[in-house]
Amino acid sequence: MNNVEINKGFVGPGMLTAVVPGEIFTSPSSEAILMALHAVGSGSKSGTLIIAANYTGDRLNFGSAMEKAKLDGLNVEMIVVGEDCALQSSDKSAGRRGLCGIVLMFKIAGALAEEGKSLKEICEIVKHASENSGTIGISLTPCSIPGSDSSFSLGSDEMELGLGVHGEAGVMRLKVMPAQDVVKKMVDHMTNPESASRLDVKKGDCVAVVINNLGGTSRMEMNIVAKETISYLELMGLLVERVYVGTLMTSLEMAGVSITVLKVTSFLLNCLDAPTSAYAWPNCYLPVGAKTRFTPEPIKLYSLASKVPDLEAAGPQISQKGEAIIRQALSFSCSALVSCEKQLNCLDREGGDGDCGSTLCKGARAILDLLEKGLELSYPSQLLLTLGSVVERSMGGTSGAIYSLFFTGAAKAFIDQCTANTWCYAVELGMQAIMKYSGAEPGDRTMLDALSAAHRALSEELQRNGNDSLEECLTALKGAAQAAEKAAVATATMKAKAGRASYVNADRVNTPDPGAHAVGIWMRAVYEAVKQQIRLRT
Amino acid sequence: MNNVEINKGFVGPGMLTAVVPGEIFTSPSSEAILMALHAVGSGSKSGTLIIAANYTGDRLNFGSAMEKAKLDGLNVEMIVVGEDCALQSSDKSAGRRGLCGIVLMFKIAGALAEEGKSLKEICEIVKHASENSGTIGISLTPCSIPGSDSSFSLGSDEMELGLGVHGEAGVMRLKVMPAQDVVKKMVDHMTNPESASRLDVKKGDCVAVVINNLGGTSRMEMNIVAKETISYLELMGLLVERVYVGTLMTSLEMAGVSITVLKVTSFLLNCLDAPTSAYAWPNCYLPVGAKTRFTPEPIKLYSLASKVPDLEAAGPQISQKGEAIIRQALSFSCSALVSCEKQLNCLDREGGDGDCGSTLCKGARAILDLLEKGLELSYPSQLLLTLGSVVERSMGGTSGAIYSLFFTGAAKAFIDQCTANTWCYAVELGMQAIMKYSGAEPGDRTMLDALSAAHRALSEELQRNGNDSLEECLTALKGAAQAAEKAAVATATMKAKAGRASYVNADRVNTPDPGAHAVGIWMRAVYEAVKQQIRLRT
Repeated sequence: MNNVEINKGFVGPGMLTAVVPGEIFTSPSSEAILMALHAVGSGSKSGTLIIAANYTGDRLNFGSAMEKAKLDGLNVEMIVVGEDCALQSSDKSAGRRGLCGIVLMFKIAGALAEEGKSLKEICEIVKHASENSGTIGISLTPCSIPGSDSSFSLGSDEMELGLGVHGEAGVMRLKVMPAQDVVKKMVDHMTNPESASRLDVKKGDCVAVVINNLGGTSRMEMNIVAKETISYLELMGLLVERVYVGTLMTSLEMAGVSITVLKVTSFLLNCLDAPTSAYAWPNCYLPVGAKTRFTPEPIKLYSLASKVPDLEAAGPQISQKGEAIIRQALSFSCSALVSCEKQLNCLDREGGDGDCGSTLCKGARAILDLLEKGLELSYPSQLLLTLGSVVERSMGGTSGAIYSLFFTGAAKAFIDQCTANTWCYAVELGMQAIMKYSGAEPGDRTMLDALSAAHRALSEELQRNGNDSLEECLTALKGAAQAAEKAAVATATMKAKAGRASYVNADRVNTPDPGAHAVGIWMRAVYEAVKQQIRLRT
Repeated sequence: MNNVEINKGFVGPGMLTAVVPGEIFTSPSSEAILMALHAVGSGSKSGTLIIAANYTGDRLNFGSAMEKAKLDGLNVEMIVVGEDCALQSSDKSAGRRGLCGIVLMFKIAGALAEEGKSLKEICEIVKHASENSGTIGISLTPCSIPGSDSSFSLGSDEMELGLGVHGEAGVMRLKVMPAQDVVKKMVDHMTNPESASRLDVKKGDCVAVVINNLGGTSRMEMNIVAKETISYLELMGLLVERVYVGTLMTSLEMAGVSITVLKVTSFLLNCLDAPTSAYAWPNCYLPVGAKTRFTPEPIKLYSLASKVPDLEAAGPQISQKGEAIIRQALSFSCSALVSCEKQLNCLDREGGDGDCGSTLCKGARAILDLLEKGLELSYPSQLLLTLGSVVERSMGGTSGAIYSLFFTGAAKAFIDQCTANTWCYAVELGMQAIMKYSGAEPGDRTMLDALSAAHRALSEELQRNGNDSLEECLTALKGAAQAAEKAAVATATMKAKAGRASYVNADRVNTPDPGAHAVGIWMRAVYEAVKQQIRLRT
């Protein structure tokens, strides 16, 4: 480009005044640099500081421009930042490369300039800070320069340690390993006492850390590396007072990360904390309200699902035979949902987010767990409220909320009696609760389609055939299960009007709704369980 | 997780007090939400505002928790943000989804809370702002949930428009197209007057824009989309007063981007500009020193290389015959470097950044261009200074600086005469200039190895055979070319001590140094040119 640009990420009050970019991975010409020095330095008595990364081309062109600028009467000084800790031997004249640590130097110099420090003072402080910093990078892929071949190749199970930012290959090739081991390898390499390019750190040192995205690393991976880096540095006895995670100096879509460690004093921390409007300077990871970083005590994780709610027995009580039927029905239906986890996830992937089976499976497992530990089954009302609470805690998500509403609503049916009609009414009340809170109705392509079909069949059969004998009830239940299954299949050709599937192009979704399909699954399991229990006795 | 976490990206003074995450892509349970409401709301007279994204599960669980919290005596209100503009028809009950626009609502609500506004006022303002925002996303890949299959599949030439953040498929599939067209498609879809979910904008409206990375998009691509979005919105007559570019709400490594547009008043701008320490809130893209964004006049680009430096003629003048030889030598050597661009890039990829050939080619083309336009050749000193200036301007990078030093140094040889010995001395002075400024020496595996071998051969041959006849000079030049070529080949087994190759593991580099190889190429071309010119005359 050979062009002075003054609207870049690190340019702004509190940081840089200008940046002179070259072509991709190439130093700008000394003439372009000289133009920039004249643009920012003319009329300034206090002078201009050049901060260059240690690469031969930058050193030559910035150095040459500085000499010319001095001849033109400008007050210019230059600092060459080189904090690369990749190469361990000392027999090389090029010295440590300038990597992401230079961004910290931009920030420190900018803060000092805002404070009105002299060019000489700024030079000394930044030079000292630069010497007290180190960077090491690792990557899973080479970088990708638009229109060029990649600079080196890596196997899918390989990583490259100690690379530069211009696509240069690194100093060591490793096999992929967990993030914790990768970070240990990087920090050990950076601080290796036998390396000529090491960063010397000792227990008790205060440090600021930059976790820099080399261009193609996901936010989640960045935060994993940040967490492991903090943990390992703290294990070494260092005080990690500032952490910056971001995309500060990339290597063009390289899936990799570099770690920069700067030994800090409170003076340097003040420079890092000083305000700047340069938009690419990242906010610091600090605990809320804290002025300095520390690792908070881990939040105690406890599983809400493992707590059995302690509800009072209320409403009608059922017989031991009834309890056995309910136990079997819960066991069969929950086991069926566990078995169908993957199948339901596949269906959900068509119009939803692919987790319907997993979410239902969580609830089913929690109920099975309770059944084993001992679940009071003799009071249907208490049982349904308990189930409502358990699925809400264990499942979460939409399905957890909906099944909780269903069970909690259904519980209200058991006031004084407990007949087949009461169970049928319970299903109706459960459905009403779902409709009231979700806004969905039968016909919207949701689980309500299967549930309402089952309820209608159950209600009609009980009315037609009566509910005096267990066999009559069983027939009605069979009808309900078949109706649920049929309604679930029919959702395949329906247009979604509620739930996530309603966001997806209707032409794309031509499989049954997973929620409705799940109702068919557990309804069939309930029928088979009741049938088995009844046949056992007759 | 079912767990209250209070150390997340958007939590901090000026933004949120707490966030209640669920499992990946799943709403948290209402019990977890209730715990959070008690944690942040107990003891607070002013109350708690829940900001939820419009998804059924979130609406149900946050709604249910709010009702329970109210029963517990807490002052809680809830806003459901839905600003998705993907679906165009209105026959759906779920409504517009909540997408990245919710982050702007976090910021506005946080700023208002810091100001001490009442819960009721905050609710009204945020609700109004939410209704005046719109979001549309596009993606080149589905999202990637660790351990799960992808939610939908896309061909390598396809894009998906209008997706949610949970891996749901979108509303339309498109073929890939340039960024400018993609942005137009997105914004047109968002503002389509016939769409029920449109964002209404009209000429003169002030807007804030968020360009959000869906997880797997590179910084460069993000900035390209930002630039195109600003251009297109300005073309529509909107005033783009704030632009935020970042990774605010991802869809787990999805290579895609969403655009959020919020219609703003100066009141809302103040809320967006208010300070916050929440680390994931991005800095705004503003021109340096400006309080509000505007698109600056484009910086006038002009090619420094096209300006021919105007140097005074000085030193000895050469004959017309000499001029013809020099013209041929420049033409042959520059053409040779142009032809060898790819070959030199390949060599450079082994230990450098793969651009050695391209950089030299740029300089060679600039010289060829000048030769055609008319280059004063009769004063060697003036010519060499001109060449130094041209290569510096046209090449940039390390090679540009080094060849500039070489030519500028060499020019000093021509004080009063211009013999073969003067040319030999010129090479020596040029080499000295390179060594002085780069710190490199012969033996460091650089171009100096070839250059010094050539100089030694030239000098020895001229001393041994004399330089009286053109034929004698030609023999010396042939020796120099051969020596350069031989020395370049020999660099293959040398260890790099300067330049980029010195950073790379020595075991990996066993090809000649591209800089040295290039010297062999142009030295041979110079010899062939001189030979041809001499033979033409005899």
